[in-house]
Amino acid sequence: MHFEVLCTDIVSRARRGRLQTAHGVIETPVFMPVGTQGTVKATTPSELLEVGAQVILGNTYHLFLRPGLEVIQHAGGLHKFMAWDRPILTDSGGFQVFSLSKLRRITEEGVHFNSHIDGSPCFLSPEVSMQVQQMLDSDIVMAFDECPPYPCEHEYAANSLDRTLRWAQRCRAWAEQKRDHKNSLLFGIVQGGIYQELREKSARGLVSLDFDGYAIGGVSVGEPEPEMMRAIDNSEPFLPQDKPRYAMGLGTPPQLVEMVARGVDMFDCVLPTRLARNGTAFTATGTLNLKNATYRTDLRPIEEDCSCSTCRSFTRSYIRHLIKAEEILGLRLITIHNLHFYLNLMNQMRTALEAGTFAQFREHFVANYAKYEPQASEREAELDE
Amino acid sequence: MHFEVLCTDIVSRARRGRLQTAHGVIETPVFMPVGTQGTVKATTPSELLEVGAQVILGNTYHLFLRPGLEVIQHAGGLHKFMAWDRPILTDSGGFQVFSLSKLRRITEEGVHFNSHIDGSPCFLSPEVSMQVQQMLDSDIVMAFDECPPYPCEHEYAANSLDRTLRWAQRCRAWAEQKRDHKNSLLFGIVQGGIYQELREKSARGLVSLDFDGYAIGGVSVGEPEPEMMRAIDNSEPFLPQDKPRYAMGLGTPPQLVEMVARGVDMFDCVLPTRLARNGTAFTATGTLNLKNATYRTDLRPIEEDCSCSTCRSFTRSYIRHLIKAEEILGLRLITIHNLHFYLNLMNQMRTALEAGTFAQFREHFVANYAKYEPQASEREAELDE
Repeated sequence: MHFEVLCTDIVSRARRGRLQTAHGVIETPVFMPVGTQGTVKATTPSELLEVGAQVILGNTYHLFLRPGLEVIQHAGGLHKFMAWDRPILTDSGGFQVFSLSKLRRITEEGVHFNSHIDGSPCFLSPEVSMQVQQMLDSDIVMAFDECPPYPCEHEYAANSLDRTLRWAQRCRAWAEQKRDHKNSLLFGIVQGGIYQELREKSARGLVSLDFDGYAIGGVSVGEPEPEMMRAIDNSEPFLPQDKPRYAMGLGTPPQLVEMVARGVDMFDCVLPTRLARNGTAFTATGTLNLKNATYRTDLRPIEEDCSCSTCRSFTRSYIRHLIKAEEILGLRLITIHNLHFYLNLMNQMRTALEAGTFAQFREHFVANYAKYEPQASEREAELDE
Repeated sequence: MHFEVLCTDIVSRARRGRLQTAHGVIETPVFMPVGTQGTVKATTPSELLEVGAQVILGNTYHLFLRPGLEVIQHAGGLHKFMAWDRPILTDSGGFQVFSLSKLRRITEEGVHFNSHIDGSPCFLSPEVSMQVQQMLDSDIVMAFDECPPYPCEHEYAANSLDRTLRWAQRCRAWAEQKRDHKNSLLFGIVQGGIYQELREKSARGLVSLDFDGYAIGGVSVGEPEPEMMRAIDNSEPFLPQDKPRYAMGLGTPPQLVEMVARGVDMFDCVLPTRLARNGTAFTATGTLNLKNATYRTDLRPIEEDCSCSTCRSFTRSYIRHLIKAEEILGLRLITIHNLHFYLNLMNQMRTALEAGTFAQFREHFVANYAKYEPQASEREAELDE
């Protein structure tokens, strides 16, 4: 058994679990920082350890195109290439092929597309994706899927789903045949868009193939939040209790709490790192736009009582100056704080689940978040900038 | 006595010294990383300590314009604003007024100019510069000077020099009157361009005003290296042995060694940080352009035997990928290595001076540096990129 549910909430479907991988144990619920191009943007591996990262995500599509597989293989796999010796989950490339590349052509065999870097022709299929992820030495491999857009007609969603199921079967078959692949876990991806019966069909079809875990895909494609929650609710009941569930590409802090309450164990999202580069910091009462003039002489840390290295040493006033002056240190400091905030939120949820206080934590957190009301001076400043 | 010469080389004019400041001792010869806008680009204060920085440079002109003095004063000075509790040297703003701002008008009183950020009208004079540097809580304050361009006609250089001497006198007078300024050291700046008798006149004039140290200015304004060395040789003989000498804005690693041999104690330069952001790393045998295809699968660190955190964990292959993919971590890792290289070079010179082996060190270092010959594959790669 790779996954163990340690305890469950009595009110919600939330679970406290533990996932065993080739590069170590992952305590769930877990947030995975996104390391698209072989680096979680602007951070070192030791900084990731310091903020409490247990596992990071790598992007098959990006790494396949640059630096290319032979470079990473030559280094002995992605862990050694980037000097990160903890677990890595790799996505299959499906999402990026559909979101980033142009001139793509989908066949039953796979997807022909052109590199977003130099336009060169490329091909990904279930078998190629599996092989690439094995070459990366991934701990958690994702099946190759098609991720339909939002909105999406029922007919397209249904056809896409059937093909994704056939592709999932090919991924499963590939993994069965490759003995050297046995150290990694293989997750299937539930699709089906906003359609309840398609989500059920997708989940049941994948479960019959017996994956090591199940992701819920197509939930960060621009849909409104109620649709996102409905996609989770429409998928989760058909997934086995003894396997981890992973909501792909999500979400805001309260969304994470609500999805943990719906039985999701794993998350990844670019929000903490991407918003940091734009000067936005997360706090328990909402986000701060540190470009605002209201922070010009604010000598408080980003968040009082925060134990991250940024909040221990630097003021809002200084970080605002760095962001306004376009200094790299500014986005570095906010990145560290934001990752610490996300990882600490998961840690708080794990602790609450163990203590049997998750319902209170959930209510308190969601009520407090977004309490932050910009002051008049800040609203004016936003117009100025 | 703020400055003490601990020992001198028997062959050259090199000295091993110690400078006492309000925020601690500086062992010389010393290299000062440049923190233009209140941050040494892409680094944290703790990283600066780890690579061995003793003192950093802040730019009066930049900080005066952004974030503005009241912000830094509100934080309790530049040390507290940027969370760096070791010594800070601030330049006077003179160099930047002449290199960065447009529409400047020089009068006997000072310089009227327009901000390079928003074009707003500004004014700097000896008294304003002194006051600004005091508000920054600078440990080493530079006199306000005019830095003439290269090349420069004799008449312009002579007139500029006379005005700079009058301005130096006003700086000295300002410092005398301000009792709360007593904790900081005040350095004069020798100008005079390429003209031997003007350098002598400048140095003698400043020495008669009795500064705490003497900088040699106008030596990183695009002149050829022989002119740079000549400017040092034309100034140094007229400076007192018992005061520190500082060559402003210099230089390459062998230039630093040669200037230490000419009796210079202090240096600052943007080369290690600026070249890092362009993918260039320093080694004892010359620079490496890490964008080159030759490093694609090179699993060696930037420099064998280097003890910096970059070389302890990361390969040339990985850093090349990061730079090619425009990932911030790439320039961060090279910045750390380059600063470590510069600071370690100064440390090696201090050790050699103490051991009486500076002449051998100098000969060995200068002979080895630039030994690095790009391979054929690398030269071709440069054409590719």
